[in-house]
Amino acid sequence: MASNGYDLWLRYAPVEDQTLLTTYQEQFQSVYFKGGSSKLDVAQKELKRGITGMLGQNIVLNPSFSDKNTLIIASAKNLNTAISASLEKDLKDLGEEGFIIKSINTNGKNVIVVTANTDQGILYGTFKLLMLMQENRDLSAINRVEKPKIDLRILNHWDNLDRTVERGYAGFSLWNWQKLPGFIDQRYIDYARANASIGINGTVLTNVNANALVLTPRYIDKVTALADVFRPYGIKVYLTARFSAPIEIGGLETADPLDPKVKQWWKAKSDEIYQKIPDFGGFLVKANSEGQPGPQNYGRSHVDGANMLADAVSPHGGIVMWRAFVYSEDDATDRAKQAYSEFVPFDGQFRDNVIIQVKNGPIDFQPREPFHPMFGAMPKTPLMIEFQLTQEYLGFSTHLVYLPKLFEEVLQADTYQEGKGSTVAKVIDGSLHDKKITGMAGVANIGTDINWTGHPFAEANWYGFGRLAWDPELDSRDIAKEWLRATFSNKEEFVNTMEQVMIDSREAVVNYMTPLGLHHMMDTGHHYGPGPWVDNLSRADWNPVYYHKADSLGIGFDRTKSGSDAVDQYAPELAKRFNDPKTTPEEFLLWFHHLPWDYKLKNGESLWNGIALKYQEGVDEVGTLIKTWGKMKPYVDAARFNEVSMLLDIQLKEAKWWRDACLLYFQQFSQQPLPAGVEKPAETLDYFKSLRFPYAPGN
Amino acid sequence: MASNGYDLWLRYAPVEDQTLLTTYQEQFQSVYFKGGSSKLDVAQKELKRGITGMLGQNIVLNPSFSDKNTLIIASAKNLNTAISASLEKDLKDLGEEGFIIKSINTNGKNVIVVTANTDQGILYGTFKLLMLMQENRDLSAINRVEKPKIDLRILNHWDNLDRTVERGYAGFSLWNWQKLPGFIDQRYIDYARANASIGINGTVLTNVNANALVLTPRYIDKVTALADVFRPYGIKVYLTARFSAPIEIGGLETADPLDPKVKQWWKAKSDEIYQKIPDFGGFLVKANSEGQPGPQNYGRSHVDGANMLADAVSPHGGIVMWRAFVYSEDDATDRAKQAYSEFVPFDGQFRDNVIIQVKNGPIDFQPREPFHPMFGAMPKTPLMIEFQLTQEYLGFSTHLVYLPKLFEEVLQADTYQEGKGSTVAKVIDGSLHDKKITGMAGVANIGTDINWTGHPFAEANWYGFGRLAWDPELDSRDIAKEWLRATFSNKEEFVNTMEQVMIDSREAVVNYMTPLGLHHMMDTGHHYGPGPWVDNLSRADWNPVYYHKADSLGIGFDRTKSGSDAVDQYAPELAKRFNDPKTTPEEFLLWFHHLPWDYKLKNGESLWNGIALKYQEGVDEVGTLIKTWGKMKPYVDAARFNEVSMLLDIQLKEAKWWRDACLLYFQQFSQQPLPAGVEKPAETLDYFKSLRFPYAPGN
Repeated sequence: MASNGYDLWLRYAPVEDQTLLTTYQEQFQSVYFKGGSSKLDVAQKELKRGITGMLGQNIVLNPSFSDKNTLIIASAKNLNTAISASLEKDLKDLGEEGFIIKSINTNGKNVIVVTANTDQGILYGTFKLLMLMQENRDLSAINRVEKPKIDLRILNHWDNLDRTVERGYAGFSLWNWQKLPGFIDQRYIDYARANASIGINGTVLTNVNANALVLTPRYIDKVTALADVFRPYGIKVYLTARFSAPIEIGGLETADPLDPKVKQWWKAKSDEIYQKIPDFGGFLVKANSEGQPGPQNYGRSHVDGANMLADAVSPHGGIVMWRAFVYSEDDATDRAKQAYSEFVPFDGQFRDNVIIQVKNGPIDFQPREPFHPMFGAMPKTPLMIEFQLTQEYLGFSTHLVYLPKLFEEVLQADTYQEGKGSTVAKVIDGSLHDKKITGMAGVANIGTDINWTGHPFAEANWYGFGRLAWDPELDSRDIAKEWLRATFSNKEEFVNTMEQVMIDSREAVVNYMTPLGLHHMMDTGHHYGPGPWVDNLSRADWNPVYYHKADSLGIGFDRTKSGSDAVDQYAPELAKRFNDPKTTPEEFLLWFHHLPWDYKLKNGESLWNGIALKYQEGVDEVGTLIKTWGKMKPYVDAARFNEVSMLLDIQLKEAKWWRDACLLYFQQFSQQPLPAGVEKPAETLDYFKSLRFPYAPGN
Repeated sequence: MASNGYDLWLRYAPVEDQTLLTTYQEQFQSVYFKGGSSKLDVAQKELKRGITGMLGQNIVLNPSFSDKNTLIIASAKNLNTAISASLEKDLKDLGEEGFIIKSINTNGKNVIVVTANTDQGILYGTFKLLMLMQENRDLSAINRVEKPKIDLRILNHWDNLDRTVERGYAGFSLWNWQKLPGFIDQRYIDYARANASIGINGTVLTNVNANALVLTPRYIDKVTALADVFRPYGIKVYLTARFSAPIEIGGLETADPLDPKVKQWWKAKSDEIYQKIPDFGGFLVKANSEGQPGPQNYGRSHVDGANMLADAVSPHGGIVMWRAFVYSEDDATDRAKQAYSEFVPFDGQFRDNVIIQVKNGPIDFQPREPFHPMFGAMPKTPLMIEFQLTQEYLGFSTHLVYLPKLFEEVLQADTYQEGKGSTVAKVIDGSLHDKKITGMAGVANIGTDINWTGHPFAEANWYGFGRLAWDPELDSRDIAKEWLRATFSNKEEFVNTMEQVMIDSREAVVNYMTPLGLHHMMDTGHHYGPGPWVDNLSRADWNPVYYHKADSLGIGFDRTKSGSDAVDQYAPELAKRFNDPKTTPEEFLLWFHHLPWDYKLKNGESLWNGIALKYQEGVDEVGTLIKTWGKMKPYVDAARFNEVSMLLDIQLKEAKWWRDACLLYFQQFSQQPLPAGVEKPAETLDYFKSLRFPYAPGN
């Protein structure tokens, strides 16, 4: 079955296993499913679509019970008492979004029951049922009880009103503001379906580098139209609030958060929005960071700013997500330390409906960073984690990199803040410190490309983000398998091979871009390709040389107690471990230490040789990936097979570019030859330095 | 059959008429079609795709002749002598691109033969065969001999290197420069298929407001990849040449076309391009117009500039398309006159491989303009016509406006330059003055929207342009029918109803935007919506008030002999007719005349009432369109039915906006009430003047 990727993991391809097909067909012989609400209606529509595709037959959804029912989809209050009694215990803890899919013996025969406390739970249960069938799972003895471990499962779109997308590599913004509100693009609906199928329940439509215009009546009407499309799918709409909006569109002279007129303006603006969108989610704010205005412009604090906005939306049940991605121009020591320094002292001072949004690492979405030290360090403040799905620093939409592996590494990292086992996941899901709100944000990798994400495998990063936001304890390998089955094929050889490829792909990109704890070495502005030599930007901490600090003595950023002392932002166990190169995990070695070129690595190689070999390893891994993919031809339709093949060839070329450019540059300092096994660069350092990409996307 | 519009008019929907289906199946029982060239290969692929879709069966293409053949697709030299002898006369005049589709009785039975002198002809013949089947035509006695009447049938993409499209309303540029040359998007192939199916044989990839970077080696590699994709479909690639490129990317200090270094630079640049793209088409140039550099910057003429570039590409068979769209800042009289004034004196001075590209009318793609007076006025110079498919001035991609009706009006206009019957079509196809090159350019309305053109009916404008470029004498009504059958349905009631709707749609937009010869009344910059009041732009001839000249005495631009005397750029017969309001066709009345508000129209109404009633008529026509479309529901899939319905609702709203804003504005001068039958405006003039659209697309 050819595919252009538009259907994502909701392909509903025909079940090929004939025995299983027959079983499924029997199980769908008589379905009870009564509609009546917009959520149930979209669930029914999805079920019909899925069954038509997978079983090759239309199904009738009966609106009344019958003894013949083989499948019952109904909220708890509509179940017959025998069935609901048997599920009572599960239902009690299910909350507003959970669901049960269970095979129950009643009246002497098995019935599959999909139930929940709410219509939203029914919708999620329906999507899960269809997904299990796409994975060709046996439903005969099914017993699934699921509810999300995190409240806010949110995509952040860095979409501008002119439809460009900051750091977008999959075309342009889905939101056609020109044709809204009158024209509802089918993509809006399919976007909502895809999100609901993995439990995403919120979307921030606009860029954190915000434009106040989206808060004007004309745009609120357009946002309302989108909110109306997304509502049946359980997806709330959020907007980014430009802090200076009261000046720019409100006619005020200040945006001081303590000024009564400013407070009143935001209150009125919130009321105006909620009148049109009663379930509006709230605001996401980037303040006093990278040129964005904020409370500090008026001598006020993040607390003042966030609480003022929180008070404006609080009467309507709205929230404020306040970003911790800040780093001051004036701080001379270490950018990695600043968010912690600025925010941790405020612990406990934010309103109940404020949540602080913290990037996964302390710098900026690098191929690998240690977890952000704020996680676990603010016991009285809700923190949500922000991951980046769009591959700003990981090869745009051209490199196959499976990000859930990266996310999992961060989520499973131990903060030690309440002793061993205090993982980031437990900070995020609120279980470590009992948080009032919990959340996970993913900076979307979605655009107008027909396959949504540019690279067919980048769809897995959207999918995997949703799955981990639902349950941050999931194994990224299991997620890969689910996705592969639904998206490509259930053939075991394909799934087992490609699952490993996806898992390995993340380490490959680390190796060919920034091995051994190196970071922030990309070229200026567009972040496309290597630029370790860049040293001419106006702020010190925008320059790659600030981060790798390569010189004749060695390489790496000294963040030990005798350096910037960033290590002491971590719990004592970790601070101690990170303070000593011998106990620092080698993947973070040059993140925490400046070490001589002849420093001996665990494998006995010198640091110089080790770096060079890691770069080569990354390139080789891409080579292996290409070979493996070549063998997958029998399992994949020609269109996507060719697409991925072409993209892998580009990835290999660019991996070599990273290797050659970085090694030639560092060789100037190490003054040592490339070790055996490392290919000789095809071009000179000057050539690599001369490359310019004025129209690279996403900038 | 649901459709997202991606398949355009190449849907190949199953033939529903069972008798016809059986006949077709018999006719495709035994097909001789030998491949062997890239053009034949894509023709075979298309045939298989079409037959699978329409007849529900795969076909085998036999590479050797058999007596059983029911269909023979082969170039003339591969036909058996009996058949080729019977076609000898037709083949002689067929040229390089023509084809024959003919039912021939041979060996006592009928065989359908598709033949041509070239593989390109076979490809065109194959597409035509499939189109005839999509129209459900009987092939039993088919006898078609076709060849294009125009040499260059070219799309102009106003696409920038950052993928924005100037005046693009269907998303962004198809050309993903970032991923080229390594990644070939399937859209490039489908774009080529669509173009080849209607005979388009050239594409200018880049904006006429040009960027020299596209001429650098890195971009030439990317252009080469596109040329390689398009070649099998008979489509040549062209680029826009920024006149100052020798300075910007060549390191020269001048771009003076008479400077030997400049000449040498363009020669070397052309050689470099042709080495990679041996069939590169040549350059399109916008020079000394709207801020673009050109020969006049160096005191040289258009002839100097065009001939210099022509000499550079001439050794490789390339051409130069030099745009006549010029209007000087300094000319105080009438913008409409300037292109003629600047170019006509140069007649006969251009190189043989230069063709002058002239917009259809003397201003700029307005809903209605008289034909451009240059047509017929340069007997010794090839002129190609430039139409705009993208609806810059006709409602963006939100309004249903069938443009081939507009194109036909221009093509059938009589220039009288060689006596009665000297139509623009005859100027364009070279028959009036025996031109060396002939051409038609269409500014593309294509973008990354899934349905390519934003509005499902805007696909018809692309289709119709191709058809008219192939044969400028075609009836726009016939073209509409072909398109409707292939794109939507063969149901007669649907085709007959919608054909009339499409034909009427063009007059509707004239009526609700710029009736009775009014023109250039759009808002500034983005050209979205009405702005008749705009009078503050730096150049007089950028302001709507320059064009309508409404005052207390009347309205309209006096272009008579006592006015700007633009009438005298037309042949004497027309000059005389246009000089008198009584003999001027009323659709051009205010184009040529400034008339008092109480001037009496042919229908007896005063001019003021007539204008107001025309605006109302336009709005009413959209209302009728909505009602008619509502009745088409049984014939159209739900997806496209709803899309068009939503867009029509927007069109109605915007038609009313145009009516109300323009009438309220002009009413200030006429000081007269709206006549009976004209709806009262819902908003004030100040409201309409206050509207701002900073992120309107295409700007």
